[in-house]
Amino acid sequence: MSKNIFFDCRGPFLINKLFPNKLLKKNIKIKDVKTLNNATSEDLAFFESVNYKEEAQTTKALFCITTEKLKNYLPKKCEKIIVKNVLHELTRTIFKFYPKADIDYPDLSLKKPSKIKYKFVKFGNNVLVGKNVIIGKNSIIGSNTIIESNVKIGKNCIIGSQIIIKNSLIGDEVVIQDGCKIGLKGFGFIPINNNNLKFPHIGKVILKDKVEIAGSCTIDRGSVDDTVIGENTYLDNQVHVAHNVKIGNNCMIAGQVGFAGSSTLGNNVSIGGQAGISGHLKIGNNVKIGGGSGVIKNISDNSVVMGYPAIPFKHFIKKWKNND
Amino acid sequence: MSKNIFFDCRGPFLINKLFPNKLLKKNIKIKDVKTLNNATSEDLAFFESVNYKEEAQTTKALFCITTEKLKNYLPKKCEKIIVKNVLHELTRTIFKFYPKADIDYPDLSLKKPSKIKYKFVKFGNNVLVGKNVIIGKNSIIGSNTIIESNVKIGKNCIIGSQIIIKNSLIGDEVVIQDGCKIGLKGFGFIPINNNNLKFPHIGKVILKDKVEIAGSCTIDRGSVDDTVIGENTYLDNQVHVAHNVKIGNNCMIAGQVGFAGSSTLGNNVSIGGQAGISGHLKIGNNVKIGGGSGVIKNISDNSVVMGYPAIPFKHFIKKWKNND
Amino acid sequence: MSKNIFFDCRGPFLINKLFPNKLLKKNIKIKDVKTLNNATSEDLAFFESVNYKEEAQTTKALFCITTEKLKNYLPKKCEKIIVKNVLHELTRTIFKFYPKADIDYPDLSLKKPSKIKYKFVKFGNNVLVGKNVIIGKNSIIGSNTIIESNVKIGKNCIIGSQIIIKNSLIGDEVVIQDGCKIGLKGFGFIPINNNNLKFPHIGKVILKDKVEIAGSCTIDRGSVDDTVIGENTYLDNQVHVAHNVKIGNNCMIAGQVGFAGSSTLGNNVSIGGQAGISGHLKIGNNVKIGGGSGVIKNISDNSVVMGYPAIPFKHFIKKWKNND
Repeated sequence: MSKNIFFDCRGPFLINKLFPNKLLKKNIKIKDVKTLNNATSEDLAFFESVNYKEEAQTTKALFCITTEKLKNYLPKKCEKIIVKNVLHELTRTIFKFYPKADIDYPDLSLKKPSKIKYKFVKFGNNVLVGKNVIIGKNSIIGSNTIIESNVKIGKNCIIGSQIIIKNSLIGDEVVIQDGCKIGLKGFGFIPINNNNLKFPHIGKVILKDKVEIAGSCTIDRGSVDDTVIGENTYLDNQVHVAHNVKIGNNCMIAGQVGFAGSSTLGNNVSIGGQAGISGHLKIGNNVKIGGGSGVIKNISDNSVVMGYPAIPFKHFIKKWKNND
Repeated sequence: MSKNIFFDCRGPFLINKLFPNKLLKKNIKIKDVKTLNNATSEDLAFFESVNYKEEAQTTKALFCITTEKLKNYLPKKCEKIIVKNVLHELTRTIFKFYPKADIDYPDLSLKKPSKIKYKFVKFGNNVLVGKNVIIGKNSIIGSNTIIESNVKIGKNCIIGSQIIIKNSLIGDEVVIQDGCKIGLKGFGFIPINNNNLKFPHIGKVILKDKVEIAGSCTIDRGSVDDTVIGENTYLDNQVHVAHNVKIGNNCMIAGQVGFAGSSTLGNNVSIGGQAGISGHLKIGNNVKIGGGSGVIKNISDNSVVMGYPAIPFKHFIKKWKNND
Repeated sequence: MSKNIFFDCRGPFLINKLFPNKLLKKNIKIKDVKTLNNATSEDLAFFESVNYKEEAQTTKALFCITTEKLKNYLPKKCEKIIVKNVLHELTRTIFKFYPKADIDYPDLSLKKPSKIKYKFVKFGNNVLVGKNVIIGKNSIIGSNTIIESNVKIGKNCIIGSQIIIKNSLIGDEVVIQDGCKIGLKGFGFIPINNNNLKFPHIGKVILKDKVEIAGSCTIDRGSVDDTVIGENTYLDNQVHVAHNVKIGNNCMIAGQVGFAGSSTLGNNVSIGGQAGISGHLKIGNNVKIGGGSGVIKNISDNSVVMGYPAIPFKHFIKKWKNND
């Protein structure tokens, strides 16, 4: 069902082949590595932070990499693979399944698009398309744009020029303006002196219907999870969306906003220019974040915040009036 | 005189055809939609904010979309078209004149530049040029750069590689470094749940003589007005200039600065790296804005400001010394 | 030995030809213009700020452009060329040696890479390569990427698509993701009304082994010195590195961070997203700088700072708790 279409999977592996020193009771075949939420009984999960304890309690995974401290949040039927550093072990394990997801190896199968295959699509000059790319009817792709293998683009999309799209599923009526780079590997690695261990990124980018992305944005694909931008959400120029970020529907994100990894936004969120959202946060629905803000904690529904760090807007204005 | 050379205009329209339910007294032909300042007696204007009351008082337009609240600022001879949401009505109306300005449809007429037409211009490899492009003597255009139809570039310009220029008029001796995207549609739309209404952008970008734009900047074209960068003004890398911004002469804008829409800067303004300028502000002449500042109100001539929000520099330094 | 491989040098010049009005005692041939540190007895140096007094005291240069105020820091054997504005005189002088380093003139010698010359390198489509480019074994270069003349790239490098590399020396096992612009001229000029004097940039970019640069970064080359990124240092998307910046080994620089010119970072420095580092600063080893910070003074080894302006992290958190 949810086979990874972007990366060649070397699995399945018997769990005892993956962890020969762990003496696990069951020795079943593991097909893939997934988040706690997405794992089925055939996948390996991982649990590295108490922030995800709810997902841990309800996971369907029968095996999970975790720590001594966290293991009790996991269900009984799930065998715990106890390690010191979950992300380090996870990296090592994903490499076995996906040895080519640690670096953006350029797609060397690119070709000019076939006029027969894409007869309902208009192309500018020098467009390059990989294998198994699907592009919907009436979509237009601008000059010098690269669409790597297995990408899917819906119908009535306008994709500008000098764009790169890889590891992405794009809905209908999506607009992407010139210069965007969508689906690149995110910024994830285990710091090791003189030789960092690069974290493989096996997730994708999902842009839902009617999304609009302005010029020169970068949207990284997920690491294990996906990066998702909801329906009718608009991004202005030079926005940076890190791996695993999930933005809801009908949001407006102004220019040069940056999202660190794995934060989640609700619907109808508006963010002013140059604001930054730290990693692993939950931003509710109908939240307004003022330009230049630095958000470093969760924000509940219907809040209006501004400042660095972001505080309720009323406090921010009061402080400013006192200072000016 | 000021015919829009970048967008195909469907006008003129009789004013009563545009607003059949408004029972307007005069029924004359309207050629175009313009700002209060730029409108002639043959154009339709719009007036949506009290910030523009002076422009309203002196407009030459004979018809203006506005609100009940604002209508009295307009001259007697100007018929008021009263609506609840000026920008919504304006969007609907501009669409009638310019049905293709709401999205950056890639220019599908691009070709390799003709050696005869551009015999005094040097080109790198794979340059693509649209129809009716004019490039002055001794200009150089780098590889993989795209210059869309109707763009004008002056003489002795150095345009780098992997650049896109559209909807722009560029002076003499202008330098644009690699990766810039100039003339894209700005970030403007009427938010509507599940289906935003995209605001058509019929303005252009004007870069005056001797402007220098460093790498990977984005400069959006104006919505109804133009985006203008004055003579001998220099921008550093990754600067974002939103629609309708007007920057004066001899300014220095450091890296990653962002301008929200419709702000105006005087001459000799210097702005430090990563500063942000909110929308619809007036920044005077000889203003200095410190790096990282967030400017959220007008700044008068000769001021030096810093901070988020920006305050007089002396106050900023005092606060910092007290805090450190 | 250290001949400039990227810019054509018109020297040597007799020192009295360069400064005919200065009545210098020795009249020897000057081969190049260098920083105080790098100058040999055959080079001209410059000394414009007391920040560099230590470098002044130990310079090997026999001639140095400086001011009345600073001249006494220089060794006796070094003849002082006293001017009012060091950078202005320096600009004028470098122009004589390097008349083509003031603007990024696009490389018009680019060609498809030769299959024979680069038989151990894999290329995507439409790659363009200049003269005398060296690329090591097993490196891969993505589509539409431009590598200008004289660039050196080590072995086992993965260079993505739509990238420009010029004036750069790149080590082994370096990864550069899509859209980066490396080696561009920095933001340096002498402000002059209506006609700035562009500062020639004769330095380069050096990326040491195992560096990883994520998507759409800009790294400017040095002006007289070089811009250097140390071994195993990783940069996230949309980072801006200005001229002459030196980043140590094993650093992590998150998304949208910006460095103004000539700052130096130690090893093991981590910087959170959107932080900004002012120019001419010294940041020690093992420093941690929080996201969104604005660093405006030197930071000593092992410090943790955050805020705008950046202050010790503990103070920052205390202030925030008091304000929220």
